[in-house]
Amino acid sequence: MSTSAVKVIAQQSRLAARQLSSAPESIRNLALIKMAEALESVKQQLLDINTQEIIKARDEGQSDAMIKRLTIDDKTFQYMLSRLKKVAQLPDPLNRILAGHTNPAGLRVYKKSVPLGVIGIIYESRPNVTTDAAGVCIKSGNAVILRGGSEALQTNALLTDAMIEGAVNAGLPQHAIQIIRIPGHEAVGELLKMDGYIDVLIPRGGKDLIKRIAEGTRIPVIKHYDGICHLYIAADANSEQAVGIAINSKCQSVQVCNALESLLVDQQCAEQLLPLLQAAFVANKIELRGCEQTRKLLPNIPPATEEDWHTEYLAPILSVKVVNGIELAIDHINHYGSGHTDGIVTQSLKLAQQFEEQVDSASVMINASTRLSGGGDYGLGSVVGISTDKLHVRGPVGPDELTTYKWVAYGDGHLRA
Amino acid sequence: MSTSAVKVIAQQSRLAARQLSSAPESIRNLALIKMAEALESVKQQLLDINTQEIIKARDEGQSDAMIKRLTIDDKTFQYMLSRLKKVAQLPDPLNRILAGHTNPAGLRVYKKSVPLGVIGIIYESRPNVTTDAAGVCIKSGNAVILRGGSEALQTNALLTDAMIEGAVNAGLPQHAIQIIRIPGHEAVGELLKMDGYIDVLIPRGGKDLIKRIAEGTRIPVIKHYDGICHLYIAADANSEQAVGIAINSKCQSVQVCNALESLLVDQQCAEQLLPLLQAAFVANKIELRGCEQTRKLLPNIPPATEEDWHTEYLAPILSVKVVNGIELAIDHINHYGSGHTDGIVTQSLKLAQQFEEQVDSASVMINASTRLSGGGDYGLGSVVGISTDKLHVRGPVGPDELTTYKWVAYGDGHLRA
Repeated sequence: MSTSAVKVIAQQSRLAARQLSSAPESIRNLALIKMAEALESVKQQLLDINTQEIIKARDEGQSDAMIKRLTIDDKTFQYMLSRLKKVAQLPDPLNRILAGHTNPAGLRVYKKSVPLGVIGIIYESRPNVTTDAAGVCIKSGNAVILRGGSEALQTNALLTDAMIEGAVNAGLPQHAIQIIRIPGHEAVGELLKMDGYIDVLIPRGGKDLIKRIAEGTRIPVIKHYDGICHLYIAADANSEQAVGIAINSKCQSVQVCNALESLLVDQQCAEQLLPLLQAAFVANKIELRGCEQTRKLLPNIPPATEEDWHTEYLAPILSVKVVNGIELAIDHINHYGSGHTDGIVTQSLKLAQQFEEQVDSASVMINASTRLSGGGDYGLGSVVGISTDKLHVRGPVGPDELTTYKWVAYGDGHLRA
Repeated sequence: MSTSAVKVIAQQSRLAARQLSSAPESIRNLALIKMAEALESVKQQLLDINTQEIIKARDEGQSDAMIKRLTIDDKTFQYMLSRLKKVAQLPDPLNRILAGHTNPAGLRVYKKSVPLGVIGIIYESRPNVTTDAAGVCIKSGNAVILRGGSEALQTNALLTDAMIEGAVNAGLPQHAIQIIRIPGHEAVGELLKMDGYIDVLIPRGGKDLIKRIAEGTRIPVIKHYDGICHLYIAADANSEQAVGIAINSKCQSVQVCNALESLLVDQQCAEQLLPLLQAAFVANKIELRGCEQTRKLLPNIPPATEEDWHTEYLAPILSVKVVNGIELAIDHINHYGSGHTDGIVTQSLKLAQQFEEQVDSASVMINASTRLSGGGDYGLGSVVGISTDKLHVRGPVGPDELTTYKWVAYGDGHLRA
């Protein structure tokens, strides 16, 4: 029965987590290398199984975008291996002394980073999440329970089997990495009930999936629902930079969470800039929707409704609003934004600092594309997701963010007076 | 109507939070000093109102313990003021650069600590929480909404009015500190619905209050349900130290969350130690309840049931179990404990380190009383609570823990390639 099977997995992970909490850095890094080696050794088998799943998905009429996400080609495969090896080279996120002192009575107190314990990753089809997530979890000493999309069930299972073999060869426990092989929603439902065994869930996928998980469990969830990212072009912005950043933020890739969705143009430069921006967006096949003032300057575009300001298009559409000053720009961003990534283009240090302080978002970009927000450019090495929550982790979720800490006090018979 | 009144408070706090996010350290510290001065100036009025509430509580037949918690005497009052002044002297929890680098393209990236935003504190009667919590929140640049127990409504309102006056005199916004003056459960229910305005709730009180809040809101909650604290006396423990630490952990104060509730004695030293421990506990009027093996050695004590191992007595009762080795001790603690504070008495560095690594608790004490776990001995200055959660904050909740961070990137037209 699937119910008890998921519980057995959760219990096994909890036991593995305890063993992992004592696993030295050298063993965890060796495991990552051996995981990559074991994957290399099943490469042909993996590509064959992946091809079968691609054919099946095509037969079932899945979209081209879905097929593309599902596919492992040689380049993707090499990238997956390189990420595991790269994580192995990152500094150890564990056993960092975060604070500490010796109190007046001689009690030695320190706060050190330790693994969270058991992490559940629930994701849609991209098989590279299987290896990325397992890599970051093992690096940070956590047991991981994977649950990928049903279209890639066999591919993910084989990836996991190889990684388990590598991890065990390095000396990690058998159940440090597990994957739920039972198809269907029921198994996910069971996973959500495993509070007491699972310390945190990280869902990756569409907003609906994430909402279903966050609202259906008592387990803490690290998540972002969407990325309604803004760029505010201040009155004093360099025009060329403003257009360049706006275009790159929107067009470099439209289907990603740090792509631009709403452009705010200061009233003082709107007349000069909006026609330039329109020409550039049109050349990039982006549909614009505007506020009333925008439409006075660009009469041929349709109106943006209240709903537009709340929408993450993930498509070649952009809402445009003229704002009167930085205060109103920040008001708009804090009201309609999702706290993911928001930027300003300005030459004024004062405006940049006000924007930095008062925009309530995980990432604030000053004269830089919103597309630069993420683990890569922030120097995190490898990430398993992005958080727009404020507690625990905000922004990219890398190995450090999969740790908690404990307070340790070494005494010699110390008592409370 | 109370419903809209709570929403207005929440909205005002959100606006104040934005202003606070730009408030310099000097202003926040000045506010703490002026808050203490303003309290000093209403001292007599405060003691009078507090006396009236004490009389009312007595007339209503409240317990002596409740009356004691409600009472502000001269000593309590001076302590409240001293805590505010002490918080002012702590290092700034804001604008700490937590990580950062300049990426290869010259993008300057840093991660800096910022306020959480709006914090709601829901607590039972102790009026010193009113000043302690407001102090830690203002220090960390957060707007705070207080909601104390109904018995101390007038006392807390006057404390808050004085603190508001002090904070405003220092230049902080009017609504940086607010208190909900509407009596009854309905107002708390409304407060729990204020996600979108309130960033985190910190309930302080009994387990029932905390459960009601955590399970009744979508706002993140920083909490601990209970403190089922353990002490494991290893086979090689120094007897005198073991007895001293056990007695201090249990008896120094029984009604607190870091008091000992279950004592685990290694099989190899049980025969020698249990009679000594019993004599010491009996002298301190502690009732012992034991496992089967304990009762073979101490035949006159009643059995500990399965329920006992799950119980935070907060009373002069202690459950005692004989365990065969450190592995089983850790198993017991991780299964029955609440992840608050657990200790070991041992002379072996190997056992101490295994215990430190594998006990999954916020605080791990080596040869020290469980009563030493807390903000004071850990050097945090002032705290608003304790967390047994693993995400965001674990253990004492001080000013640093009331911050989140944002990623800031300064570019000069930087684009994604």
